[in-house]
Amino acid sequence: MSKPVTPLLTVDAVILFNNKKEIVLIRRKNPPFQGQLALPGGFVDIGETVEFACIREAKEETNINVKIHKLIGVFSSPDRDPRGHTVTVAFLCEPVSKKEKPKALDDAASLEIVALSEIQSMQLAFDHMDIVKKSGILNS
Amino acid sequence: MSKPVTPLLTVDAVILFNNKKEIVLIRRKNPPFQGQLALPGGFVDIGETVEFACIREAKEETNINVKIHKLIGVFSSPDRDPRGHTVTVAFLCEPVSKKEKPKALDDAASLEIVALSEIQSMQLAFDHMDIVKKSGILNS
Repeated sequence: MSKPVTPLLTVDAVILFNNKKEIVLIRRKNPPFQGQLALPGGFVDIGETVEFACIREAKEETNINVKIHKLIGVFSSPDRDPRGHTVTVAFLCEPVSKKEKPKALDDAASLEIVALSEIQSMQLAFDHMDIVKKSGILNS
Repeated sequence: MSKPVTPLLTVDAVILFNNKKEIVLIRRKNPPFQGQLALPGGFVDIGETVEFACIREAKEETNINVKIHKLIGVFSSPDRDPRGHTVTVAFLCEPVSKKEKPKALDDAASLEIVALSEIQSMQLAFDHMDIVKKSGILNS
């Protein structure tokens, strides 16, 4: 049997910050959605779990060491990424301590820490607004 | 940028049957775990959502039209599939009606409908027992 071809796999992190009143977004350095705000995240490497990939990508892009609070969901619409079919596993995360120092790194041109009350008026890359809404953090 | 290489993506279905007292397992026709019992499932095709893939694979292997009740979780341990790193998205499902006629098809050599009370004494392929336990159906 030939090796199956399946969608690419990514992770995205909704990182709660400042006593859960804010979340951490990055401004994308590269296409697609270059210059737009997005959740930190990226491709899952062969040999790592999706949880590990999420923690790694959060650190690589925001300098924040995170722990995973819960799985938000799996987002797999074939048209969600203009580069081709990409399925993302999204997690709700928190910094491991209050001493974490957010800093834009890697694929992040800059970093924005946004109040939950402001999120819904913003435009996010990909289906990241759907992910934020599904996380439940805007409901309380 | 070269195209990223990520783990292969599959879906697996825990299909509740007979008023939620049983689940539907298949006996695997092909390696790995040939001849062992497993959850119905398979690779996600480019262009379909994970929910669609789950419903399609359930139908292809068991002849049952299912609806998805909930996401159980994402299982991504790098050693869970001896063929290479494969990440599975697992769903709890139910037949769309009581008229569904289970029948082993495709990758299923045979089909077994097993009482929930019997599951824990069985051995399942891959990490499928972890998936069944995580689904919560054994708790009540």
